[in-house]
Amino acid sequence: MNTTSLIILSGGMDSVTLLHDKKEEIALAVTFDYGSNHAAREIEMARRNCKMLGIEHLVIPLKFMSDYFKSSLLDGADSIPEGHYNSENMSSTVVPFRNGIMLAIAAGLAESRGLSRIMIANHGGDHAIYPDCRKEFIDSMNAAVKEGSGHKVELIAPYTEITKSDIACIGKKIGVDYSLTYSCYKGGEKHCGKCGTCIERKEAMHDAGIADPTIYES
Amino acid sequence: MNTTSLIILSGGMDSVTLLHDKKEEIALAVTFDYGSNHAAREIEMARRNCKMLGIEHLVIPLKFMSDYFKSSLLDGADSIPEGHYNSENMSSTVVPFRNGIMLAIAAGLAESRGLSRIMIANHGGDHAIYPDCRKEFIDSMNAAVKEGSGHKVELIAPYTEITKSDIACIGKKIGVDYSLTYSCYKGGEKHCGKCGTCIERKEAMHDAGIADPTIYES
Repeated sequence: MNTTSLIILSGGMDSVTLLHDKKEEIALAVTFDYGSNHAAREIEMARRNCKMLGIEHLVIPLKFMSDYFKSSLLDGADSIPEGHYNSENMSSTVVPFRNGIMLAIAAGLAESRGLSRIMIANHGGDHAIYPDCRKEFIDSMNAAVKEGSGHKVELIAPYTEITKSDIACIGKKIGVDYSLTYSCYKGGEKHCGKCGTCIERKEAMHDAGIADPTIYES
Repeated sequence: MNTTSLIILSGGMDSVTLLHDKKEEIALAVTFDYGSNHAAREIEMARRNCKMLGIEHLVIPLKFMSDYFKSSLLDGADSIPEGHYNSENMSSTVVPFRNGIMLAIAAGLAESRGLSRIMIANHGGDHAIYPDCRKEFIDSMNAAVKEGSGHKVELIAPYTEITKSDIACIGKKIGVDYSLTYSCYKGGEKHCGKCGTCIERKEAMHDAGIADPTIYES
């Protein structure tokens, strides 16, 4: 298979699963550092997975997001709400148009490198609170990427209509080591176990029948 | 009229005309510094026009573009081809997915600020060599911006189907001072007069019957 893809890799469960799932076709992994509470720990996990697979890895800082964007995800651990993703209060963790920004930069970088596909691991469990994770967004962004690159680049988001539990099942099948992923929005040394993304991480591993290797504070 | 718009302002003729044309509805102007040869001179012109109109102005550096993107526009004055925009050699000045990246960041920033429109001054004279200036791109990017912002932000590109000469006619009518704009891709103190954007600048002012205030080297 040709290595003609660029992947947006956060270092969380979803994108690390996609990295291993499509490793034969990935030429470049890009992690965007937009100043989130958990950036440093996620980036380290992204780096370790790329090193393991021998895939080139770039970290691109997006300082303007922490300078000018409003989101509790950028405001320190104490601002992160606790509770399930479905809770109303989780909407404070939205970083406006985050996936659109990452995909646009990925499209330009792919075209610069002569790569024809950009991949992202958004999924159906990313809930209605994140509009830039939904199929309607992915489809229109794919059209924009194709038009704006002169049909040289397309967008692939294979997990858009499945859940995080489905992703964990894929990871189990192909042997992803989830101790080399980080999720917690608070960004502590241990996962907090209480924020929306920690709760979803636990549920997904439980549903997939994986012995959860994560050390939680609670 | 409500000031609910953000404009992408380069400091060239087109975006400066749009700034003055829509000044009553613009709350924020954003200039992206992606390391082009002419960035410093354009930014200074953007700054002066905003100051004149009392509009807030942000400059956002996009260092990753000069670090990782391929384009003669980022490679120093000697790399810029001379001749008309329609020439094949001008395609080296394409910065891959540049408008997509600027619009995506603008969308996120607008949503963060509670603004409902992002404006860009791409135009019908931007030629087939720049796919991210065409109507097909603008329409699909607008759909992506709407979907990805939960229908809080939309994209307005009022010059998409007119020429640079048409824009100069608008500027003449509303009294834009084109000595406070910069175009040359080479980025020198004087406009070179030979690159595609200089040639188009001259032609547009001539067509609009404006006495060109620009000092050209040739």
